[in-house]
Amino acid sequence: MRLTATKANGFAHADLGAFSKFLEDGPGEKISKQFLRDVLGLTGVEMSITSYPPDVCMPFFHSHKQNEEIYLVLKGSGKMQLDNNLIDLSEGSIVRVDSSVSRNLKCGPDEDIVFLCIQAKTDSLEQCNKGDGKRENTAPLWE
Amino acid sequence: MRLTATKANGFAHADLGAFSKFLEDGPGEKISKQFLRDVLGLTGVEMSITSYPPDVCMPFFHSHKQNEEIYLVLKGSGKMQLDNNLIDLSEGSIVRVDSSVSRNLKCGPDEDIVFLCIQAKTDSLEQCNKGDGKRENTAPLWE
Repeated sequence: MRLTATKANGFAHADLGAFSKFLEDGPGEKISKQFLRDVLGLTGVEMSITSYPPDVCMPFFHSHKQNEEIYLVLKGSGKMQLDNNLIDLSEGSIVRVDSSVSRNLKCGPDEDIVFLCIQAKTDSLEQCNKGDGKRENTAPLWE
Repeated sequence: MRLTATKANGFAHADLGAFSKFLEDGPGEKISKQFLRDVLGLTGVEMSITSYPPDVCMPFFHSHKQNEEIYLVLKGSGKMQLDNNLIDLSEGSIVRVDSSVSRNLKCGPDEDIVFLCIQAKTDSLEQCNKGDGKRENTAPLWE
């Protein structure tokens, strides 16, 4: 998959395609991985979307120096190992991982897994939601 | 939907359920929205998963003081307005929005939309991927 984004006017957008399609695109490759930071010009996080075929895991365990990671399963199932803890994953499973934890993820035996991974600097969020949002009186273009 | 997470040993995990199930849970509510920061103990981002029924949009336009936002459509279709720009959304659409941009999102006429929204402080990511990751020699528990 080769992804390009449209960037203009303070936003950038791209189309990953339906997640079932993402799986269909993958069979020629052992692992399909798409990083999104450079594509979209992200400045607060790195994100990637990855698919593994059955029984495939990450090539090595890893931890992080300063980044928190969040994994969200978009399709399929599998397992995740966090130090010496093993948990089950299925569509909609979401896992936050401290930087120091050694992690790996393995696709289950029956179908491909597709997951999103988000990296952000630990403790970098200073405010959010009502504390960061501002109401705007923009005229909707869809009415 | 009332979500709880299991927190221990440097990680936290929760189960959003299959995204089609997330839609099925929603019909009693006009808008179903689940914030994830407090549930998972996130420190670098706020995240939410939201579903809207057909033709429903956010109750108001908003911008942000310092946070970048990223929207990812998990199911369904709709439109997003960014200041005076209108773009189409479908499963797999991903949009990065500068803090100052006024934004809103409207579900299409035919089916519910489910989307993920991530907030992170603009320019807060200092390093990532190989620059932040460390290989670990952890013994896999699945072999």
